[in-house]
Amino acid sequence: MQYRVEKDTMGEVKVPAKAYYGAQTQRSIDNFKIAEDINKMPKEIIKAFAYLKKAAAITNQQAGVLPKNKSVLIGKVCDEILEGQLDDYFPLVVWQTGSGTQSNMNVNEVVAYRGHVLNGGKLTDKEKFLHPNDDVNKSQSSNDTFPTAMHIAAYKILVEVTIPGIKKLRDTLAKKSKKYMKVVKIGRTHFMDATPLTVGQEFSGYVSQLDHGLKAINNSLPHLSELALGGTAVGTGINTPANYAENVAKQIAKLTKLPFVTAENKFEALAAHDAIVEAHGALKTVAVSLMKIANDIRMLSSGPRSGIGELFIPDNEPGSSIMPGKVNPTQCEALTMIAAQVMGNDVAISVGGANGHFELNVFKPVMIYNFLHSARLIGDGCVSFNDKCAVGIEPIEANIKKHVDNSLMLVTSLNTKIGYYKAAEIAQKAHKEGTTLKEMAVKLGYVTPAQFDEWVVPANMVGKL
Amino acid sequence: MQYRVEKDTMGEVKVPAKAYYGAQTQRSIDNFKIAEDINKMPKEIIKAFAYLKKAAAITNQQAGVLPKNKSVLIGKVCDEILEGQLDDYFPLVVWQTGSGTQSNMNVNEVVAYRGHVLNGGKLTDKEKFLHPNDDVNKSQSSNDTFPTAMHIAAYKILVEVTIPGIKKLRDTLAKKSKKYMKVVKIGRTHFMDATPLTVGQEFSGYVSQLDHGLKAINNSLPHLSELALGGTAVGTGINTPANYAENVAKQIAKLTKLPFVTAENKFEALAAHDAIVEAHGALKTVAVSLMKIANDIRMLSSGPRSGIGELFIPDNEPGSSIMPGKVNPTQCEALTMIAAQVMGNDVAISVGGANGHFELNVFKPVMIYNFLHSARLIGDGCVSFNDKCAVGIEPIEANIKKHVDNSLMLVTSLNTKIGYYKAAEIAQKAHKEGTTLKEMAVKLGYVTPAQFDEWVVPANMVGKL
Amino acid sequence: MQYRVEKDTMGEVKVPAKAYYGAQTQRSIDNFKIAEDINKMPKEIIKAFAYLKKAAAITNQQAGVLPKNKSVLIGKVCDEILEGQLDDYFPLVVWQTGSGTQSNMNVNEVVAYRGHVLNGGKLTDKEKFLHPNDDVNKSQSSNDTFPTAMHIAAYKILVEVTIPGIKKLRDTLAKKSKKYMKVVKIGRTHFMDATPLTVGQEFSGYVSQLDHGLKAINNSLPHLSELALGGTAVGTGINTPANYAENVAKQIAKLTKLPFVTAENKFEALAAHDAIVEAHGALKTVAVSLMKIANDIRMLSSGPRSGIGELFIPDNEPGSSIMPGKVNPTQCEALTMIAAQVMGNDVAISVGGANGHFELNVFKPVMIYNFLHSARLIGDGCVSFNDKCAVGIEPIEANIKKHVDNSLMLVTSLNTKIGYYKAAEIAQKAHKEGTTLKEMAVKLGYVTPAQFDEWVVPANMVGKL
Amino acid sequence: MQYRVEKDTMGEVKVPAKAYYGAQTQRSIDNFKIAEDINKMPKEIIKAFAYLKKAAAITNQQAGVLPKNKSVLIGKVCDEILEGQLDDYFPLVVWQTGSGTQSNMNVNEVVAYRGHVLNGGKLTDKEKFLHPNDDVNKSQSSNDTFPTAMHIAAYKILVEVTIPGIKKLRDTLAKKSKKYMKVVKIGRTHFMDATPLTVGQEFSGYVSQLDHGLKAINNSLPHLSELALGGTAVGTGINTPANYAENVAKQIAKLTKLPFVTAENKFEALAAHDAIVEAHGALKTVAVSLMKIANDIRMLSSGPRSGIGELFIPDNEPGSSIMPGKVNPTQCEALTMIAAQVMGNDVAISVGGANGHFELNVFKPVMIYNFLHSARLIGDGCVSFNDKCAVGIEPIEANIKKHVDNSLMLVTSLNTKIGYYKAAEIAQKAHKEGTTLKEMAVKLGYVTPAQFDEWVVPANMVGKL
Repeated sequence: MQYRVEKDTMGEVKVPAKAYYGAQTQRSIDNFKIAEDINKMPKEIIKAFAYLKKAAAITNQQAGVLPKNKSVLIGKVCDEILEGQLDDYFPLVVWQTGSGTQSNMNVNEVVAYRGHVLNGGKLTDKEKFLHPNDDVNKSQSSNDTFPTAMHIAAYKILVEVTIPGIKKLRDTLAKKSKKYMKVVKIGRTHFMDATPLTVGQEFSGYVSQLDHGLKAINNSLPHLSELALGGTAVGTGINTPANYAENVAKQIAKLTKLPFVTAENKFEALAAHDAIVEAHGALKTVAVSLMKIANDIRMLSSGPRSGIGELFIPDNEPGSSIMPGKVNPTQCEALTMIAAQVMGNDVAISVGGANGHFELNVFKPVMIYNFLHSARLIGDGCVSFNDKCAVGIEPIEANIKKHVDNSLMLVTSLNTKIGYYKAAEIAQKAHKEGTTLKEMAVKLGYVTPAQFDEWVVPANMVGKL
Repeated sequence: MQYRVEKDTMGEVKVPAKAYYGAQTQRSIDNFKIAEDINKMPKEIIKAFAYLKKAAAITNQQAGVLPKNKSVLIGKVCDEILEGQLDDYFPLVVWQTGSGTQSNMNVNEVVAYRGHVLNGGKLTDKEKFLHPNDDVNKSQSSNDTFPTAMHIAAYKILVEVTIPGIKKLRDTLAKKSKKYMKVVKIGRTHFMDATPLTVGQEFSGYVSQLDHGLKAINNSLPHLSELALGGTAVGTGINTPANYAENVAKQIAKLTKLPFVTAENKFEALAAHDAIVEAHGALKTVAVSLMKIANDIRMLSSGPRSGIGELFIPDNEPGSSIMPGKVNPTQCEALTMIAAQVMGNDVAISVGGANGHFELNVFKPVMIYNFLHSARLIGDGCVSFNDKCAVGIEPIEANIKKHVDNSLMLVTSLNTKIGYYKAAEIAQKAHKEGTTLKEMAVKLGYVTPAQFDEWVVPANMVGKL
Repeated sequence: MQYRVEKDTMGEVKVPAKAYYGAQTQRSIDNFKIAEDINKMPKEIIKAFAYLKKAAAITNQQAGVLPKNKSVLIGKVCDEILEGQLDDYFPLVVWQTGSGTQSNMNVNEVVAYRGHVLNGGKLTDKEKFLHPNDDVNKSQSSNDTFPTAMHIAAYKILVEVTIPGIKKLRDTLAKKSKKYMKVVKIGRTHFMDATPLTVGQEFSGYVSQLDHGLKAINNSLPHLSELALGGTAVGTGINTPANYAENVAKQIAKLTKLPFVTAENKFEALAAHDAIVEAHGALKTVAVSLMKIANDIRMLSSGPRSGIGELFIPDNEPGSSIMPGKVNPTQCEALTMIAAQVMGNDVAISVGGANGHFELNVFKPVMIYNFLHSARLIGDGCVSFNDKCAVGIEPIEANIKKHVDNSLMLVTSLNTKIGYYKAAEIAQKAHKEGTTLKEMAVKLGYVTPAQFDEWVVPANMVGKL
Repeated sequence: MQYRVEKDTMGEVKVPAKAYYGAQTQRSIDNFKIAEDINKMPKEIIKAFAYLKKAAAITNQQAGVLPKNKSVLIGKVCDEILEGQLDDYFPLVVWQTGSGTQSNMNVNEVVAYRGHVLNGGKLTDKEKFLHPNDDVNKSQSSNDTFPTAMHIAAYKILVEVTIPGIKKLRDTLAKKSKKYMKVVKIGRTHFMDATPLTVGQEFSGYVSQLDHGLKAINNSLPHLSELALGGTAVGTGINTPANYAENVAKQIAKLTKLPFVTAENKFEALAAHDAIVEAHGALKTVAVSLMKIANDIRMLSSGPRSGIGELFIPDNEPGSSIMPGKVNPTQCEALTMIAAQVMGNDVAISVGGANGHFELNVFKPVMIYNFLHSARLIGDGCVSFNDKCAVGIEPIEANIKKHVDNSLMLVTSLNTKIGYYKAAEIAQKAHKEGTTLKEMAVKLGYVTPAQFDEWVVPANMVGKL
């Protein structure tokens, strides 16, 4: 490969001749050869940096500390980054410095050098029109830019991927709930037969879980909307012009069309990432909900002949390489695996969040990597589960009717008529002797056949619909 | 020991002659000999049951399904439970049925039998005035009472123990922040010397963390305020009188003076405990904050001679059984151990929450046990840390001054005067040669002594105070 | 209450007149009011201390640094502690100093003062015959005693409670496996019908899981057998006589009858508790196994009429306060709740283990608290599950036969006769049209009825038994 | 793009004209659009499949159930996969069916179709020379191949990446320990000054941690060496020739040169992945060790002027985009972030491991994905930390000397001369009045200057070296 020489405060470094990045990016490539094929810094962070670098340039220009032509040029390169044109020049991995400094410098270098070229210069020019530190990074530090990028990326993925994905699934489940509101089925508690409810009622529980999960995510957005930018090195805002923090937050809000504000307290914003911990707690809550829902659906659709068999779910692919004709609840499996992953990611984030020291938490990359992973998995997973499974769910009414009709737990209706103890005796003896409830109830002389038929009506046991 | 015979639907059981509980409690004692000396069902749950049994009795009476004298009697026993008079009769452990049925029955039995005695009966009477199932448990199921008790206990402990504890610590830290707002100290990022800030600014970050944590807990209260009661066996409300759910929630709100409401969706309320998962996510966020804060304080107070030594913390006890005169940051240690525990509890709760099936989650006891543990530990831990450590924190100004004066990172002020590269050269050479920044800056000819003194002023580097 | 005055290096303290403990214990009571009713320092730790204090006294005597009469007296009090006679004098909580110094001093004080009384002195004597630090703690530091007590307690509970509990359950499952080795049943993969196996084969998998789990626990014992004692303050063994570490380990081995040795490296033994982390990893593996086994059993025994219903499990108690006659898999529920707890405890231990600094890990109490909790829960839980559930498991052969006979997956036998694709066609069409496999196979002309009967024999599909 | 039509038992599917994969791979691409840019099935699994498919073909041929020419052809394609030539044809993601069936079929299809082309056929031929199910998957099921691939991949990465990486770091630390065995430094317990030890002793603790960690990993290898292959659909080995399981394990051992054996119990091997849980427990233990070690090193190298400053670590890159000349412990940060990730991955694996049902665990992909991630991160991370940090560590002797000389804890030497209480008085008063120990000891009249100099010698306080 062809190389050119770039330098930083520590000396000269060879970089690929055509790479828009410079010495510090190259040092990081050389110093952190850790899972480099699978753990690149997430693209959402790179794009978040593009928003903030552009916003900073505009704000710096308005504050009179950056010439207009430089500001415009920086903005242009940022637009290219947002369009994905410069993806190849962000080769760094998650497992770098814990402040993300190297990714900040990677962005600074790409913006400076690509800008220089856009401005008519050559990569081999000793002096570039834009300086990575003095221009692109002006009024900034890695310590405030990286957490700002974390919040931008986290907020964006929640509102663009996660929340819409959950909502899509929620709406489908709500439709199913409404459609099957009158299909009476046996309830199951402790995995055992219980009193009846309707399919629609059962699904309404899932909807309520997701509704509460969406509220929990929404509750976490205000903390995420607070941006560290303007705190610079340690939160004091050293080397920033007047009102910079407020103004740059406004610019970011304008560019992203999201309600970002400057963080009330910049010391927290650099030294701790409780907003990420808190918001991921909401994601984990949703993961817990999804595990429950997907488990129920796979169990209810189990069979086809020796399981519970109350729900039909779509057949999407042959299920077995050895058992012909087998169909499996594969979307449930993907979703529950996602739930397991999110529960693990939560611990990684908490451990990172708890181990900040003094003025800077240096577990930033691992925290945002796990956060974006979870947010993406839940969003994508809900859409996949929705489109390939939930929309096609239908009750298998024959099995449902058989189960409810056989149930011994219908005896519960008799509690208020003959008391809990006699009702229990009926159920126990019917179970032991293999009879129906009615047969036993009459045999024991506790009710007449007519009373039984009047009092024990599954459809009357499900409450108001 | 003396015994008497009690029976339930499965037959006769010997119970201690004077115990107010009956057959089902005794069966649970016999069937679950698991960590019985250390893992009793939390007393907060027993008291929550007392509120709900009393509320149910009143509501049942008003609905005309329970005679007034029985209702009054139930209420009396519940009051005794709330006063702690019957503590000895709640011997069951956490590791029982996952619905908490046995603890519900334990309460039903104690209320019935103690009520019977209050009413002039004897424990050995075959028929009791109150029936555990037909009277005390009327219009209820374990499946809706236990989750109701979970929410009552969780909400109460948060507002009575956890939140006040956090606030107490938050207020002390806020006072310290204000008091030491002008004490300039060196900042540390990556555990390395950085630009200065003040002690007050540093502490303001802790305050902001706790403020956000309190918000997160408060955000989780509405979901916890939703009560399952009225859902009975599977969420349909079978065997309840009209408007029971709404009315009993109002009674509970009245008795507890907390804003409880009936859950919008009873199916979720029995089958999932996302409210507990969600609220514990907030507790875990606070634990993460406390780990950070306590770590900082122990590190800043390290020494006395070979550490960082910038903070004085109170000496509470001899620190070592072998090293005379040693004093240790023991309150920091208790608090960080608590943080570790809460992080673990969070996983136990999530695993429990994710593994509910169909109409009932049967990890209820393990979930609430861990929740109450965390809530208590954070509340008590903050108070202990506050009273025995935080209130006594003082800056050790001599050390603080020495550190800030020596710092090479003061060079950052020169960025905007002479550029990042020259500033870096000054710092690197001063470090290498062991000189002061000023000596090197002048030696390199980048600034005059007067310029240095004008431009490099720690107190000017900390922003607006 | 009556008080007397005791003092330590920080001054005087009032302690209850009759308490055998002294000033430092009292300071800890006063300083750490954290969950004091539920989180006492585990009794296993106190007893482990009794072994080590006695062993240290003997070793000190043999080394000539402690008079014989003092050594004997210390041993006597230690025996009283082991017999549980002094339980009331160990009131400290887990949430104290992270080195456990205060519990070490609690033991030192109780041994010294109780010894003084045994020796004819009075608690109010100003000078006592035994000095907590200079005699009882001789050649020791909290920093090496507490981790020694951790290993003694952990090793003992594993071999006395955990391993025997697991083995008991393992043996029962092995008996069931043997007994039901020829009962052919349907297999289930993805919760869906699959090719057959036998009940005995299914249970052999559980046995194999527990056998591997026992191996994993046994693999972790050697690390736990290494004792820190002799490292004193920082691992260097300051203030110990020659060969003290080796000799005291031998004494402990002799007293406990367990193969303890002195740790190869004392610096690790104080500064890190990887042995606890490692061994708890094995406990967590067993918890994961138990969750799987208990889940299977509850699902296989589900019903009685609308579940899978292939296993009978004992009815131990009435299952519902509202549904008469309901029986639930309560032992499965206790065991899976325990699994959730152990998974959480694992995180608490890992967080504690990861956060040691320099020469001392100060998360000792939280680590051993969680370890002992898990070890106890698994041991007790396995015994309870064994005695009240596993021993009574029986196959419900009628249901088992019905399921296997109906299964479409028997078609897999035909793969090697007619190919995977034709076999799949048979299964799919039989499913769609609701016929038996045989009917469809013949109808499609792929086999004759005689061939079908010869080739599709469930009992021939389960391999060698 | 150009397409061709392929079909499976569910019908026809369009696949890219030149792709070697077929209908089932394409269905999975279409059905699981979840994080497809970042979560491809790990390449280690694909390669493990290549070993096992080749081994199965050889074993099938030897058993007489597969013609030699087909076996040879299958082996050839497997070799191409191992060389990475067919990487583009394995596009599936982790979040698919939980049995990994689709990745097994992906491999089956690529081997069959690429084999067909190698054999002179065309991708558009309706009939291919090799059939994915009947030839490539002969005597196999996804249910036994995927767990076999999991164990092959896990074992290989441990011995090829993880263990060598840890050993490399361990050896460097051992060298440092030896080299600096006589450099006396202050000890620190509770982050506070304690009695001295040497730099070499301190590092020997790290070495011991890693030695124990290596043992723990090695202890987990035997369980991983057990292969599921031969169990086929549910563990019974249906549709396999005689002795197939033993023979195919031997072939795999031969091809991989690793000591694989057939699993004693195939039911466990399909239904549970405790071997993965157990082995990852060992990885997590190492992660916990690495967190401790990296934390120590970053703290000991903190400064340069206002920290502890006892260790020099290499300067690898400019540390700050705003603070000129700043150097940070970036390798420590990468390693501690890795530790946090591994601690999170452990939970994901445990949740997956605990949730298998009946004859098959369907969290296979998420479990192995996390396992390989951790194994890779630890291996790569240790090498990076070793090469870019550990090899360059040097003590900063001036600071070390200053700290040890100032220490008040040297007073511990006097315990055995003048008793703990008088020694404590000296330390406390020296601390209060800011004097040296010696000054205070003499002033209080407890020792003469000569005695002090004889008794208080740091180099004599570190034990045998």
